[in-house]
Amino acid sequence: MSSLVLFAALLATPADAKKRKPAPDAEEVAAVILGQALTSDGAMDKLIELCDDIGHRLSGSPQLQEAVKWGEAKMESEGLDTHLEDVMVPAWIRGKQSAVLLDPIERPLNILTLGRSVGTPDGGIEAEVVVVDDWDHLESLGDAVKGKIVLYDVPFTDYGATVQYRGDGANRASRQGAVAVMVRSVSPASLDTPHTGAMWYAEDIETKIPAVAVTVEEAALMRRLSERGKTFRVKLELGAHFIEDQPSHNVVGEIKGREKPEEIVLMGCHLDSWDVGQGAQDDGAGCTAIMEAGRLIAALETPPRRTIRVVLYTNEENGLMGGKTYAEVHADEKFAAVMEMDTGAGQPYGWRVDQRRDDKEEAAKLAEETIAWLKPIQDLLEPIGANQLKAAGSGADIGPLVSQGALGLGVWMDTTGYWPIHHTRADTIEKIDPMNLRRNVATLAVTAWMIAENPELPPE
Amino acid sequence: MSSLVLFAALLATPADAKKRKPAPDAEEVAAVILGQALTSDGAMDKLIELCDDIGHRLSGSPQLQEAVKWGEAKMESEGLDTHLEDVMVPAWIRGKQSAVLLDPIERPLNILTLGRSVGTPDGGIEAEVVVVDDWDHLESLGDAVKGKIVLYDVPFTDYGATVQYRGDGANRASRQGAVAVMVRSVSPASLDTPHTGAMWYAEDIETKIPAVAVTVEEAALMRRLSERGKTFRVKLELGAHFIEDQPSHNVVGEIKGREKPEEIVLMGCHLDSWDVGQGAQDDGAGCTAIMEAGRLIAALETPPRRTIRVVLYTNEENGLMGGKTYAEVHADEKFAAVMEMDTGAGQPYGWRVDQRRDDKEEAAKLAEETIAWLKPIQDLLEPIGANQLKAAGSGADIGPLVSQGALGLGVWMDTTGYWPIHHTRADTIEKIDPMNLRRNVATLAVTAWMIAENPELPPE
Repeated sequence: MSSLVLFAALLATPADAKKRKPAPDAEEVAAVILGQALTSDGAMDKLIELCDDIGHRLSGSPQLQEAVKWGEAKMESEGLDTHLEDVMVPAWIRGKQSAVLLDPIERPLNILTLGRSVGTPDGGIEAEVVVVDDWDHLESLGDAVKGKIVLYDVPFTDYGATVQYRGDGANRASRQGAVAVMVRSVSPASLDTPHTGAMWYAEDIETKIPAVAVTVEEAALMRRLSERGKTFRVKLELGAHFIEDQPSHNVVGEIKGREKPEEIVLMGCHLDSWDVGQGAQDDGAGCTAIMEAGRLIAALETPPRRTIRVVLYTNEENGLMGGKTYAEVHADEKFAAVMEMDTGAGQPYGWRVDQRRDDKEEAAKLAEETIAWLKPIQDLLEPIGANQLKAAGSGADIGPLVSQGALGLGVWMDTTGYWPIHHTRADTIEKIDPMNLRRNVATLAVTAWMIAENPELPPE
Repeated sequence: MSSLVLFAALLATPADAKKRKPAPDAEEVAAVILGQALTSDGAMDKLIELCDDIGHRLSGSPQLQEAVKWGEAKMESEGLDTHLEDVMVPAWIRGKQSAVLLDPIERPLNILTLGRSVGTPDGGIEAEVVVVDDWDHLESLGDAVKGKIVLYDVPFTDYGATVQYRGDGANRASRQGAVAVMVRSVSPASLDTPHTGAMWYAEDIETKIPAVAVTVEEAALMRRLSERGKTFRVKLELGAHFIEDQPSHNVVGEIKGREKPEEIVLMGCHLDSWDVGQGAQDDGAGCTAIMEAGRLIAALETPPRRTIRVVLYTNEENGLMGGKTYAEVHADEKFAAVMEMDTGAGQPYGWRVDQRRDDKEEAAKLAEETIAWLKPIQDLLEPIGANQLKAAGSGADIGPLVSQGALGLGVWMDTTGYWPIHHTRADTIEKIDPMNLRRNVATLAVTAWMIAENPELPPE
């Protein structure tokens, strides 16, 4: 955006705002899209097929490829030009998972091995448990955790602050000689509900030690035992392992632009899920919402000025190979915006605007300009409360494109109901409010349409 | 209560109310008890020992007998005169439990066999599932459920309205030729959380068919499949069975009355639990709250006018043999009141007043008199919000004594947090608010003391 336009935007009164809006028919069409999105259960119907008939969709699994075929056929049947793009993905196998607390009485623990973890040697691992509060506490224990199993009992504050123990916990404990780690499930609530999710091994560690999630309840039990000065052991038997990488695909559906087909508005989600529950909110809902938004736009009499592209990414959960591969292959294309929905299906608030620049001041200024540019579009979504904008991260799958300079937009929504079911067997369809799912479709479809139709590209 | 006293009570103004109160020192002592109950974690400390060191306590199990020994020793050490009373109890064994939904894809279901259910024959039971809304719907299906597995998918309204499908569902389905039943867990909330509980077989049924609880999530999945017109099967393999009845005990702790030792104020709970979770709220909290109330009263310089008796009943969950046996053996004793805490450990509101008379009008009049009689006692608990009284059922264990004419008082409390964890692995200690547990102890101890101390017996 030139500084003159920026100046005008900053001075803009509500009356002036009209001047920056796209051609009037764009808004009329947006109103039609809004009405259709809010009165159709197309996303929910697709979600039921995906989750009930195919089920969860772990990277490298046959179910994921079932979902790939389903997504391609569904978008084709709904008027989009579709194709598949090859991606090799990791294939981690959960295998057997057993944990038994041996003291003061023997009782089985309800665990989930963390994704990408190694298994235990033959005969399992049996060791005393050390309950750890946080990184500082771990460090202060020094050699005291040698030969022990570390339990990270870190209460949920927000996802970012807590999930680091799941991701990096095995590395830090291994460096101090621990033989395994257990991580309190990353969740604000539990009804005996373990949460899986990805962990990773640093290159410098000598020993890859296994990592499991325990429930909030059983972390609390071990915390109590520890506070009473009791010594107690856990036995872990885990069959987790990798097999060779498997062929998979990003699924692409497109509505070619009528004037600027080479400029693309991309809507993304991830089709893979963890191997528990149905992956209904993570990220089945995101996939079927963007597919439905694509269907509504594909059904219009006149295609949008720019190309709208729907991408169901593969392998977000434990590798991000879908997003990384896509960004490499499509590095030379021009993206007007890349959008993602991947935090459940709560009431949408609007968009998290994500533009990355090396210079922080430049990035902040750009975010401000972009938010001003988007505001007239978001006004159309005020009736459903989805008209808010803030500078924040957008989405994992589109992240590599955003890092290459594209404008990232992540659906910003209420996630109260999301974190308690995230990465669990409880991530199931009946927890989704169909009206909120419709509102998310409306948010995606109206915003994608208006950006694709705008004579100007967003600020960059 | 004589009609003259009743007349006076009905006319009583707040100023008059004083006349009916017990001797002033009783209230002074009650204030001491209140203060001690609200500032001590004695109940929580005992609950941690019971749940963490012994664990769940199924009828007929060695753990239940561990708990019996623990309860006796604990009350003895806290100043009560203790003894055990023999009770033979049923011993139901859960054994293997496996359920697999075979269509449209194979997936394991997270079930719990219902208590007292039979198992499946060798090789299990595999059959088509029929989703049923309620009793009327089942009846309307007639022979259509023959050879099928009936799923009762009944949303939680209140416990009483919903639990009948768990209890009686197998009988009704068996009479129409079904081969097994699945019951949607009796709960207002779920995070992949099956709820067990008791079922029973009617004498007239030809075939005892097995019964399991499924999660709210998986009931919803099967409901969706059914609404889409799909045919689907479930395979059940259940090892549930009874072994011979086992010896167990009611655990009794007593503070002998100084003037009327033959008149008894009884506080009850049940020490047994289901074989999942810790039985922390059902009914560990009730047991340790009444034990703590007993400890506080036993520690007073002067014992109460009447006897106060703490009874930890055995085998409530699947037989009520503790309560039944107790009422038979103690039928000739004089109970001033029998109290129970068995609905969790939420904020106490006061008491459910339970007096049973053949004549309904007489019962209603008696409840009114008793509520008026109790009101001055409850005024002492107004500072903690536990001063409300209503005519309602009291408790299962004390039920047989109440049926023999005793005044039953059940702690009336907030149960919002109780039903979601009731009979699940999620019934664990960390969900209990220690302040609410203290308030419950205060409610029990103050009320028991004041009834025991009152020169008059409650109306009867």
